[in-house]
Amino acid sequence: MSEFSSLDYKMMSRAITLAKSGIYTTPPNPNVGCVIVRDELIVGEGFHYRAGEPHAEINALMMAGDKAAGTTVYVTLEPCSHYGRTPPCASALIQANVAKVICAMEDPNPKVEGIKMLRDAGIEVQVGLLKDDAKALSPAFVKRMTTGLPFVQLKIAASLDGQTALSNGHSQWITSMQARSDVQRYRAQSDAVLSTSKTVIEDNASLNVRWSELPDSVRHQLPEKEVRQPKRVILDRQNELTPDLKLFSTTGARIIVSEQGDLNPHLTPSGQVDLKATFADLASNFGINHLWVEAGSTLARSLIQQGLVDELVLYLSPKIMGSDGRGLFGALGLSSMEETIELDIKEVRQVGPDIRITAQVKNKE
Amino acid sequence: MSEFSSLDYKMMSRAITLAKSGIYTTPPNPNVGCVIVRDELIVGEGFHYRAGEPHAEINALMMAGDKAAGTTVYVTLEPCSHYGRTPPCASALIQANVAKVICAMEDPNPKVEGIKMLRDAGIEVQVGLLKDDAKALSPAFVKRMTTGLPFVQLKIAASLDGQTALSNGHSQWITSMQARSDVQRYRAQSDAVLSTSKTVIEDNASLNVRWSELPDSVRHQLPEKEVRQPKRVILDRQNELTPDLKLFSTTGARIIVSEQGDLNPHLTPSGQVDLKATFADLASNFGINHLWVEAGSTLARSLIQQGLVDELVLYLSPKIMGSDGRGLFGALGLSSMEETIELDIKEVRQVGPDIRITAQVKNKE
Repeated sequence: MSEFSSLDYKMMSRAITLAKSGIYTTPPNPNVGCVIVRDELIVGEGFHYRAGEPHAEINALMMAGDKAAGTTVYVTLEPCSHYGRTPPCASALIQANVAKVICAMEDPNPKVEGIKMLRDAGIEVQVGLLKDDAKALSPAFVKRMTTGLPFVQLKIAASLDGQTALSNGHSQWITSMQARSDVQRYRAQSDAVLSTSKTVIEDNASLNVRWSELPDSVRHQLPEKEVRQPKRVILDRQNELTPDLKLFSTTGARIIVSEQGDLNPHLTPSGQVDLKATFADLASNFGINHLWVEAGSTLARSLIQQGLVDELVLYLSPKIMGSDGRGLFGALGLSSMEETIELDIKEVRQVGPDIRITAQVKNKE
Repeated sequence: MSEFSSLDYKMMSRAITLAKSGIYTTPPNPNVGCVIVRDELIVGEGFHYRAGEPHAEINALMMAGDKAAGTTVYVTLEPCSHYGRTPPCASALIQANVAKVICAMEDPNPKVEGIKMLRDAGIEVQVGLLKDDAKALSPAFVKRMTTGLPFVQLKIAASLDGQTALSNGHSQWITSMQARSDVQRYRAQSDAVLSTSKTVIEDNASLNVRWSELPDSVRHQLPEKEVRQPKRVILDRQNELTPDLKLFSTTGARIIVSEQGDLNPHLTPSGQVDLKATFADLASNFGINHLWVEAGSTLARSLIQQGLVDELVLYLSPKIMGSDGRGLFGALGLSSMEETIELDIKEVRQVGPDIRITAQVKNKE
């Protein structure tokens, strides 16, 4: 028999739903939701809206007020135990005299000792209810905490036959307005957008979030003033960026990766940018959990070949361009089917006239 | 206000559902369903199971028996008016003394005068209820009757980046067992499978329906002995087929298209096979409404470029092969994005680990 009751499942589901309310505002902090239950009724609930503001548990305790004593608390992540920008949630739960705490998952950061603090104070703690759903709330937070690397989503767009441009380079409007709006949504969820100086110069791309271009559903949830502009990370080893580019006149921090820039790239023995080591710096020096990559086939190929992509987001436009165009990843020089890069399809859906495929890369050992 | 009541919609929906029961057995005849209603209750219903066997109206009348007089009859297609392999359904309805007939659509064959016969006999007839759904029951029948050409579905399979093989030709098992089973289902619905001698020889392909490989859902509906083997149509202008091929030892009629074969191909002024004229012959000489094409990129390109494809069925395998492989349609030599071939996505779904995309080709004038 499960150690959790159907009431437990219901309440943790509610906490997970609440956590999602912060999807555009909470990062780089994890999305967390909390529900406080007394006699099978919710007496308090809340979620963490934004870094620096109260955590989910505190919001829920404020709503519960005097009713918090003796309750069961459902929280999607282990309560924090340290003084950061806010006092520790574990102490607040202890002070409120709650009877029991159920956490969906432990904090991936081993320094967090909220569960131990609660138990030491005599509060019953259970862990693991709807753990996978809780992990999926903040995959980028979990990835960085456990590996030191950001969670990388690679966006690419092509015709149905896998072409990104005709042989003469023509490629305007491969995908639809709806797909471009969907891309704005991904940018709005990420901590940083990565591209190359080549792409930025060719498209005079600003790579920022334009609220007016977000899907209606997102604009209802995210008022314009609440938009977090992702940092723009540009690989520019040859110092090709010029100050007249839109990149420099639009809002959102810039991290230029070059020897004279904001981040000096690591190099491989052969003199290439060591992407993995550079990504680790983005995580540790700039607190970037979630990296959204928009770039051409050269960078796409390197990322895929080096196993650095967590999720591929492929937009296919309903067009046939012919295989004499420019292919999605360029040449890979494979000589047997065992060498192909394998993926797991996570979701397939229509976005306006286009198709969006999200896939996990099965990184080979 | 609509001329049809909610009862009418309900009964015609039932007739359409009944019609679908014959999806694997009725072609090349159209799928037809019929419901006979008295005092808002169904007193008879039926569908057309197989060419040569009773039509839907006759099956429904047999069930209704004495109760048919004075009823309203819902039928998805105009009742037939001629003596074919069975007597005309219009006369049977007149003899049964029904009060009213509602047809979803007229017969696309202008020679059919069932509606006129019924009206001349004093029976009230209404036409057009759920017409689009009725047309979708037998798209291939409608296409041939209205254009003289078969309905053409082109099946192609590739990696997610649009490659059908590596540069050295390796391509084994691009798609999954589930996708291959799905292909068996399409073959089982079609009147003929078209391929080229090149493909037949390379794969030693039988191109027939193997009942054991059909999806379970189809096998429940279609007992092994009821399988209609599609005709195998092979383009073989160079007379390359040899008698040792599986094609010649497996069941299902063969139509070899060559000067010494079963069908002498039409040629274009430049000496190529005139695919459109040859398809018209397949429709008129062999009664083929529904042509399922499995072939390589050369034939695929020709069919697409000539606007002969009604529906593209594309299986994408979750693999990246690199664009130095063999592309889906080969080179098209396009120089501007206006020249790309545009499609309308009809459906996208996951088939096992693969993705199936069905798309309509927007034929350009």
